[in-house]
Amino acid sequence: MTQRFPIRGIIPPLATPLTRETTLDVPALWRLLDHVIGGGVHGVFLLGSTGEGPSLSGAVQRDVINEACAHVNGRVPVLVGITDSNLDESLELAEHSAKCGADAVVAAPPFYFPINQQQLGDWFISLSDASPLPVFLYNMPSHVKVSFDIATVRRLMERPNICGIKDSSAQMLYFNELLQARADRPDFLVLTGPEELLAEGVLIGGDGGVCGGANLVPRLFVDLYEAAVSGDLKQVMTLQNRVMRLSTLLYRVGPAPTGFMTGIKTALELVGLCEANFAPPLGPLPHEQRRMIAQHLADLGVLDAKGAVKRT
Amino acid sequence: MTQRFPIRGIIPPLATPLTRETTLDVPALWRLLDHVIGGGVHGVFLLGSTGEGPSLSGAVQRDVINEACAHVNGRVPVLVGITDSNLDESLELAEHSAKCGADAVVAAPPFYFPINQQQLGDWFISLSDASPLPVFLYNMPSHVKVSFDIATVRRLMERPNICGIKDSSAQMLYFNELLQARADRPDFLVLTGPEELLAEGVLIGGDGGVCGGANLVPRLFVDLYEAAVSGDLKQVMTLQNRVMRLSTLLYRVGPAPTGFMTGIKTALELVGLCEANFAPPLGPLPHEQRRMIAQHLADLGVLDAKGAVKRT
Amino acid sequence: MTQRFPIRGIIPPLATPLTRETTLDVPALWRLLDHVIGGGVHGVFLLGSTGEGPSLSGAVQRDVINEACAHVNGRVPVLVGITDSNLDESLELAEHSAKCGADAVVAAPPFYFPINQQQLGDWFISLSDASPLPVFLYNMPSHVKVSFDIATVRRLMERPNICGIKDSSAQMLYFNELLQARADRPDFLVLTGPEELLAEGVLIGGDGGVCGGANLVPRLFVDLYEAAVSGDLKQVMTLQNRVMRLSTLLYRVGPAPTGFMTGIKTALELVGLCEANFAPPLGPLPHEQRRMIAQHLADLGVLDAKGAVKRT
Amino acid sequence: MTQRFPIRGIIPPLATPLTRETTLDVPALWRLLDHVIGGGVHGVFLLGSTGEGPSLSGAVQRDVINEACAHVNGRVPVLVGITDSNLDESLELAEHSAKCGADAVVAAPPFYFPINQQQLGDWFISLSDASPLPVFLYNMPSHVKVSFDIATVRRLMERPNICGIKDSSAQMLYFNELLQARADRPDFLVLTGPEELLAEGVLIGGDGGVCGGANLVPRLFVDLYEAAVSGDLKQVMTLQNRVMRLSTLLYRVGPAPTGFMTGIKTALELVGLCEANFAPPLGPLPHEQRRMIAQHLADLGVLDAKGAVKRT
Repeated sequence: MTQRFPIRGIIPPLATPLTRETTLDVPALWRLLDHVIGGGVHGVFLLGSTGEGPSLSGAVQRDVINEACAHVNGRVPVLVGITDSNLDESLELAEHSAKCGADAVVAAPPFYFPINQQQLGDWFISLSDASPLPVFLYNMPSHVKVSFDIATVRRLMERPNICGIKDSSAQMLYFNELLQARADRPDFLVLTGPEELLAEGVLIGGDGGVCGGANLVPRLFVDLYEAAVSGDLKQVMTLQNRVMRLSTLLYRVGPAPTGFMTGIKTALELVGLCEANFAPPLGPLPHEQRRMIAQHLADLGVLDAKGAVKRT
Repeated sequence: MTQRFPIRGIIPPLATPLTRETTLDVPALWRLLDHVIGGGVHGVFLLGSTGEGPSLSGAVQRDVINEACAHVNGRVPVLVGITDSNLDESLELAEHSAKCGADAVVAAPPFYFPINQQQLGDWFISLSDASPLPVFLYNMPSHVKVSFDIATVRRLMERPNICGIKDSSAQMLYFNELLQARADRPDFLVLTGPEELLAEGVLIGGDGGVCGGANLVPRLFVDLYEAAVSGDLKQVMTLQNRVMRLSTLLYRVGPAPTGFMTGIKTALELVGLCEANFAPPLGPLPHEQRRMIAQHLADLGVLDAKGAVKRT
Repeated sequence: MTQRFPIRGIIPPLATPLTRETTLDVPALWRLLDHVIGGGVHGVFLLGSTGEGPSLSGAVQRDVINEACAHVNGRVPVLVGITDSNLDESLELAEHSAKCGADAVVAAPPFYFPINQQQLGDWFISLSDASPLPVFLYNMPSHVKVSFDIATVRRLMERPNICGIKDSSAQMLYFNELLQARADRPDFLVLTGPEELLAEGVLIGGDGGVCGGANLVPRLFVDLYEAAVSGDLKQVMTLQNRVMRLSTLLYRVGPAPTGFMTGIKTALELVGLCEANFAPPLGPLPHEQRRMIAQHLADLGVLDAKGAVKRT
Repeated sequence: MTQRFPIRGIIPPLATPLTRETTLDVPALWRLLDHVIGGGVHGVFLLGSTGEGPSLSGAVQRDVINEACAHVNGRVPVLVGITDSNLDESLELAEHSAKCGADAVVAAPPFYFPINQQQLGDWFISLSDASPLPVFLYNMPSHVKVSFDIATVRRLMERPNICGIKDSSAQMLYFNELLQARADRPDFLVLTGPEELLAEGVLIGGDGGVCGGANLVPRLFVDLYEAAVSGDLKQVMTLQNRVMRLSTLLYRVGPAPTGFMTGIKTALELVGLCEANFAPPLGPLPHEQRRMIAQHLADLGVLDAKGAVKRT
């Protein structure tokens, strides 16, 4: 059975395995889920940015939820991204997630109109009041243009159905203020988005990370999380060094600003977990860049010299 | 019969009249269409930013297209906004627009992932190749984060089904480069987004404007367009002064950054064209701000001292 | 005799001819002054951005003022840039300018600390109260991070010793608001910074431009200014096309963001007006880029096929 | 005797005590130096941003260096800010610092022209080649617009006279990359600018912090540094909580964006260390805001209920 709340630790934002026709590749989804759960992750997050949620049609989004919830089958908590620029369609996805047995939903702000903090807070109050599942705020200003001010987070913390925040701003000044704010509601969860900041986030009091790289090497991030929780700074620095190498070697091969997205999915293909097909506006990397990623996977010890996946 | 291409002049981005339940208010849509066409506009643009297109569900979007195309009935060209973060759903809207008799579609870039110019160009080539209607590029970096580089515009100009660009960047340096680029394809249309820049844009060689204020006072913008085309600088300055007063008096009452959106729709309610209902994340202005807009409409001569609409 | 105020028309921000040792090249300064005055400019602006003012030591700055004022000798008004992060040193430069017979000073905001509008306004009130010469505000947010809000401009307009603004923001929405604001003080001058926007600025009611390209081809900008003032739109478009070609051919050869600076000075060297020596942090272009600029000068008709300067 | 390199730990960016006439208040400088050295700091940094260096005239800058070096008299290392938009004047300040016995200089990039990485690197190579003292890079993009790319830092690491970097970007992703880069030159020091990030920075491997708040409460930051170095996470969180309270209570009373600057100096006045006089463009806080800071100092336990300084 799932442990449900509190959802702490490493929760990979699952890449969405796609066919060339941009439909869900169900067997690859199963493989990927088994891979990350086998690596010890504490939950999975469907249809986030790494999962290309906002680029998928409503039909494919529902397929992902159906198949993932059934296959996870309570082994770990399941979070579902419901970010949409239309409130009704966002709520329909929350309803669908609840029916499929998901544990929580995650929503970034509506992402077309630039909005102010009042409008931002009102949207999330409407959303959380109507959502059948607990709602995580998803702070992602690089994609949606607006950040949750601390005052807005405090306002939203008053709603019991808002259970935490995933902060992908990469701003530790802000993250520290989130931790300060949640002193008033200790069960409010604060998760780190960028995997390169997982260590700092947990050392200073955060609850874990939504690490894209955990699609590929879940155990590395689980180990780093545990080292940070236990205050083993020497082990933290050793593992953090591996995280930084992963980041600089894999996520900067494909062209900015989506090098992370193309890097991680190409690596997943190279280790045999899913094909590197993308929903537009993303697309596959050219051959030369794929070859570089293969080389870097060998340098990182994820592939061996012959390109075979090494047991870890 | 519609004159179709070239579509020059004043093309208001039609506000979408909504009921309190966020469904389409059909009679108000008819009124608003008759009002702007009666004011001499050269086309209408449905489901743009001013029309709250990205905040509306697919069902309401289709209602707007159905009802507006039927009611316009060929009196002026109809453009339809199909901006979406999912390519398939964008194309479905283009198909629907074609079936209803629209003349062109208008698409801003996909607006969730930050993307590069290659990805941006590829998206629009896929879109225009599949679209049954000519496509206007919609440059709106404040909302979608990416701007069409001139090199990308030149690449897209090579596709016959891409017919022009609506530039809402408010960057006249960029606008001047668009005009320079289209020397190589003279039928490529260059329209100005911000109504406060309509005059400069037309004086320097642009083809017209997608002026939100033309929902309210279409004749003012039609007159300014004609003065600029004919090089009557004195008349341009007189009318430009009225445009600037409209802008500073109406669009800064509601809170930033959506003061334009709330200002224009509240004004439309006050002159009896449609109710000031909004799709989330926007919402109605408080009473005091509505009162200020009413006062400003009187100052501008749109309403008389008793709040009644003046004949113009 | 100089006409002094109002200072309207084309006022080139004079490049500062330097030796390899970053001292003033006095004969080249004379040549350049005679070149632009011979081309019909309505004033000259020393020690602006194009003149590398903030990169020069106080000693070189004073040399420039001494020599230029003496050589101009009242033929046209002289404006002097006194931008500094230290108020006292800025005022010392204003004193020196007055002693040398300059007509006005031009100051951008202090450019180290990010400041607010209150601090910005206070600085300019201190500056203008103590300045022996009229002060032009210099709006240059790309370099100094802060822009003069319209409300701050209105506050500063109340000081008689503040005589105008040079707007290098490239934001025509803002420029239009400046024109609207100065209706309350008609002698307040509004000059355009970016030469590519000179035409729009004058057509819509501005007073002229501080065009860097006028160092090289003063007559082109003087002619464009006069065409715009007289409302000859056909001539405006012809000359504007030449301005755009100049801009795209010369100012993008050197690396961003200082391609304009290196392009214009290299062109000045190629036409024999001054050497292309720069004060750090700028430096000379590599040979290949110099060659490209020479080729482009031929394409533009500034040099002939043998690289000789053509009479214009 | 001073320990000189490596300079690790807490190095306050010393506030510059000024008279009302913007001259140096020498006795207050002595008091402040004795206060921070008595609090256990590991060095002092003169003429940084907190010291209003770029707002001071060359004469006052030299006074600060003279008096501070003489008074410190080798008790701790002295670093001097030499940031200037003119290279020669920056180097003159480095010469003066060397003569006075300072240990190192600290330079932010030239801060008027936006520059590229090549120009940025070239400037620092010129500067470090000519500087008689070791040079710290000062990464301060919010003030100078450009950040040192990691590749530029790697280029500059090759110069022995460049001894480290003070990173005030507040970007921990970047900070982590600095730590990764210095693996190739282990004696290259990496110091944290924002005091709210001191803990994370040291926990992940950084060398200390240039904490403005250490002007007021040096012992708090020294204790936090030592707790982080020793991996005492419980103590880190306790002290970090105090740092966050200090930050949110003192630095947001004065208007943005200089609330930190006005907050810290007003607090220094209230505890009797120096008067809250500022060089333009900064200025004193109004009475009401001063009263709030006094109240907050009591809340923080820095002042007692009667406004007297508490012994700590």
